[in-house]
Amino acid sequence: MQYTIQQIADALGAESQGETGLIIEGAAEPSDAGPAELAMAMSPKYAEALSGGSARAAVLWVDADWKALGLDAAIFVPRPRMAMAGITEMLDRGQGVEAGIHPSAVVDPSAVLAEDVAIGPLTVIGARARIGKGAVIGAHCVIGMDAVLGEDATLREMVSIGARAQIGDRFIAQPGARIGGDGFSFVTPEVSDVENVRKTMGDKGEARAQSWLRIHSLGAVEIGDDVEIGSNCTIDNGTIRNTCIGNGSKLDNLVHVGHNTRVGQDCLLCGQTGVSGSVEIGNNVVLGGQTGVVDNIFIGDGVISGGGTKILSNVPAGRVMMGYPGIKMETHTDVYKAQRRLPRMARDVEALKKAVFKQPSSD
Amino acid sequence: MQYTIQQIADALGAESQGETGLIIEGAAEPSDAGPAELAMAMSPKYAEALSGGSARAAVLWVDADWKALGLDAAIFVPRPRMAMAGITEMLDRGQGVEAGIHPSAVVDPSAVLAEDVAIGPLTVIGARARIGKGAVIGAHCVIGMDAVLGEDATLREMVSIGARAQIGDRFIAQPGARIGGDGFSFVTPEVSDVENVRKTMGDKGEARAQSWLRIHSLGAVEIGDDVEIGSNCTIDNGTIRNTCIGNGSKLDNLVHVGHNTRVGQDCLLCGQTGVSGSVEIGNNVVLGGQTGVVDNIFIGDGVISGGGTKILSNVPAGRVMMGYPGIKMETHTDVYKAQRRLPRMARDVEALKKAVFKQPSSD
Amino acid sequence: MQYTIQQIADALGAESQGETGLIIEGAAEPSDAGPAELAMAMSPKYAEALSGGSARAAVLWVDADWKALGLDAAIFVPRPRMAMAGITEMLDRGQGVEAGIHPSAVVDPSAVLAEDVAIGPLTVIGARARIGKGAVIGAHCVIGMDAVLGEDATLREMVSIGARAQIGDRFIAQPGARIGGDGFSFVTPEVSDVENVRKTMGDKGEARAQSWLRIHSLGAVEIGDDVEIGSNCTIDNGTIRNTCIGNGSKLDNLVHVGHNTRVGQDCLLCGQTGVSGSVEIGNNVVLGGQTGVVDNIFIGDGVISGGGTKILSNVPAGRVMMGYPGIKMETHTDVYKAQRRLPRMARDVEALKKAVFKQPSSD
Repeated sequence: MQYTIQQIADALGAESQGETGLIIEGAAEPSDAGPAELAMAMSPKYAEALSGGSARAAVLWVDADWKALGLDAAIFVPRPRMAMAGITEMLDRGQGVEAGIHPSAVVDPSAVLAEDVAIGPLTVIGARARIGKGAVIGAHCVIGMDAVLGEDATLREMVSIGARAQIGDRFIAQPGARIGGDGFSFVTPEVSDVENVRKTMGDKGEARAQSWLRIHSLGAVEIGDDVEIGSNCTIDNGTIRNTCIGNGSKLDNLVHVGHNTRVGQDCLLCGQTGVSGSVEIGNNVVLGGQTGVVDNIFIGDGVISGGGTKILSNVPAGRVMMGYPGIKMETHTDVYKAQRRLPRMARDVEALKKAVFKQPSSD
Repeated sequence: MQYTIQQIADALGAESQGETGLIIEGAAEPSDAGPAELAMAMSPKYAEALSGGSARAAVLWVDADWKALGLDAAIFVPRPRMAMAGITEMLDRGQGVEAGIHPSAVVDPSAVLAEDVAIGPLTVIGARARIGKGAVIGAHCVIGMDAVLGEDATLREMVSIGARAQIGDRFIAQPGARIGGDGFSFVTPEVSDVENVRKTMGDKGEARAQSWLRIHSLGAVEIGDDVEIGSNCTIDNGTIRNTCIGNGSKLDNLVHVGHNTRVGQDCLLCGQTGVSGSVEIGNNVVLGGQTGVVDNIFIGDGVISGGGTKILSNVPAGRVMMGYPGIKMETHTDVYKAQRRLPRMARDVEALKKAVFKQPSSD
Repeated sequence: MQYTIQQIADALGAESQGETGLIIEGAAEPSDAGPAELAMAMSPKYAEALSGGSARAAVLWVDADWKALGLDAAIFVPRPRMAMAGITEMLDRGQGVEAGIHPSAVVDPSAVLAEDVAIGPLTVIGARARIGKGAVIGAHCVIGMDAVLGEDATLREMVSIGARAQIGDRFIAQPGARIGGDGFSFVTPEVSDVENVRKTMGDKGEARAQSWLRIHSLGAVEIGDDVEIGSNCTIDNGTIRNTCIGNGSKLDNLVHVGHNTRVGQDCLLCGQTGVSGSVEIGNNVVLGGQTGVVDNIFIGDGVISGGGTKILSNVPAGRVMMGYPGIKMETHTDVYKAQRRLPRMARDVEALKKAVFKQPSSD
């Protein structure tokens, strides 16, 4: 993969200067960059390290003095992370899945595959599954019966997609992602301890030990366009309706989405976030790493949660959340500051009691 | 798969009325149901939506006026979630694993398989493994050498079971479940920082940097009857004895159970719960999503933990837990309410100090 | 596998007494041990159970009276866990991967494998991958193109290693470990809500709904010598540079390490720990189970975190951390104790206000 500085700048819609015919074969950090690598030096702080490498060209901030940095060519970008999107897309060397269907793949004769799909070794495609054009499916994937995969899908190795899943265009799944396991749904013949505790917030009542009966998942998983699912994620089938992930939403590694839950559009669910069953999540929601969400609540549009937040009740649109139980981030910050002063406050209260009530400290 | 209303009602032991010969091919939510689908409308709230769909038959609450709802037939159930168990089991269309052993499967000649097992494409079965009758094993599974799997097992795709695992009847494993990885157990040649911190609750002492030596797992995993393990779960081998999961217990997705731990009967471990090594968990325990349990403690029968609880010490039978560190839910609720008022209390204490001691606020 | 008591004692550098020619075929807990099994009874507490089993030989503490325990032979060890490392290594029966390359494996002709490697059924090895001598690779693994695996690697079943990963000697990976998924890195065309919240700690500003553009991962994963990765872990590729795991570090099950993060040497990351992107972790760091670490911070050498700690800012070397947000363990203990007394303190403050200001309680 080779591009000139000019080609990269054009793709980014960015200005370039110097030897714009210079050939670039990859990207690197400023201190590691070789002469055929484009150094990522989008701020003066990073540019300092250029002298430690041997880059001839770099991506710089607007109005940077590229000549003073000893470069032969430069590209200037106003929003560095946006430029990263374009540059890394161009220079991605991929995983090397070869064109065509690998002879070791096991494709059911009733499956319908677009002509140009690339299917890796030992991948299994079930009965009546349909895979759209442009799909690149890695080794060791399993696509269940009657599943539908839209155009231009990219599946890394060992992705599994359950029967009847419906997935839109430009889907990306990282290694080990699990779409369409059965939901975790059980019931006891009589009212259980857990049901009592939920009603009373703490009282188990008189319920006795019982065994669990399984509620099967008749629904499947439905995923919109432009969705990405991280490594070893799990998205469960719905019970009666489908579990849904909206257009443009991205799930990080080891994220869990329970049965019946509906995630809106353009959401980010960061690493190890867990969403229980039957949750309604709006659009443009960002849940920080290790966020937890209890079942049967809603989270409004534009909600943001900090890492580790445990959301235990409905959250109105636009709220920024933090803590366990999750509360408004501002309130959390106030409570947290007061907590840090608690041991001192406890001493103050004891002193006050002594002074006011003439009583001895109880601790 | 087709049933009459009468057949479904009989299977549930429920009453039905109307055209009980009506043919049902699936279940649906009231607003989505087509004429051959049974609408799930077990409470008046859900029944309102029937007019938006075209269901001819529904599952309703006892004494519901089915004719007024415009239906041709109805089934009446006293405990809706129980009815869901029966109905979804009948209507589950499954994953389509075909009868027999797929020609691409790699079965060791010394493995002993019951005659009627269904083994999916590319599944590997190791030396001397034994698989009981009625097993349905999906594509891309690996069953280790000397592993024993009881009758009527259902394994979804990409499940792995390590060598020497012993599993009872009616086992269900969701995609990517990992039974029998090695335990996480390491030791330093001399007493380590971590050992010091555990003894002193915070003081690292004088321990110096050391490397870790591995303690191998000689034990395996032992699983009772009627156990279900969720997608991408991990249950580790024991060190000397086996790690055990008791009859009837169910693990949700991404749950981790460490080496030597024993989980009792009829427990539910919800999504992303992590149980460390050498924990003793009683019967009928329910751990909410993202619960964490430290190593070498016990959790008594019937304990329930709310989502996100971190259990750091022994828990007596019957207790309902919440928080980090996990405490009794009632106490947690009291503490939590007081916390929310902390910033105001801090201001009160400052005002009191000023009034009583005539001293200025220190903040 | 058979050893005499003498051979085991010699391997441990430990003293033995009695019939040191006795043949041992396995290890067991004292109460379960058969006559050919070595009972692990390293403290008087465990030795009590010897009478319940039929062990003829045991591993005991120094100076134990082995004859009084009814044994025919004994091995004496000063540090029990260290002895466990040696004994379990000797007696590990492994997973039974057979010598040579299984005929069902799919090995690219350009891959370079040492002569003595063992490759299990259906494993896929990509173009130009290199695998060092002594490797034992289980069934259903995928090694990506241009990946390098050092000497004496042990991969359990279903491990995936992405393209261009570089891994040192004596690497161990448990089932389902994912090395080299793409990093979770997205950008919006304009400044997003999340960027605003991070700057202002809570104020979302005026940002509007936007879609996410993907930043591809051009870097890979680089792993040192003597590293172990647990079941269903995920370690992501770096964006421009590599994500790194240092020599001797061990990751437990379901651990997540984000893109660009560098973990130092001899660290332990316990079960379900999640480390975000671009984190710098020093040497000899121990993160307890379910620890979370936000992105773009550093954690100094020798830091220890208790289970469930959420680390939200830089941590200096040697600190012992606990809580959410994570703080010094000592401080956390003080705060925690005060929290438990909060409801009482709240009542005290109300009483004080009443006494001092003659005002009625506001609650």
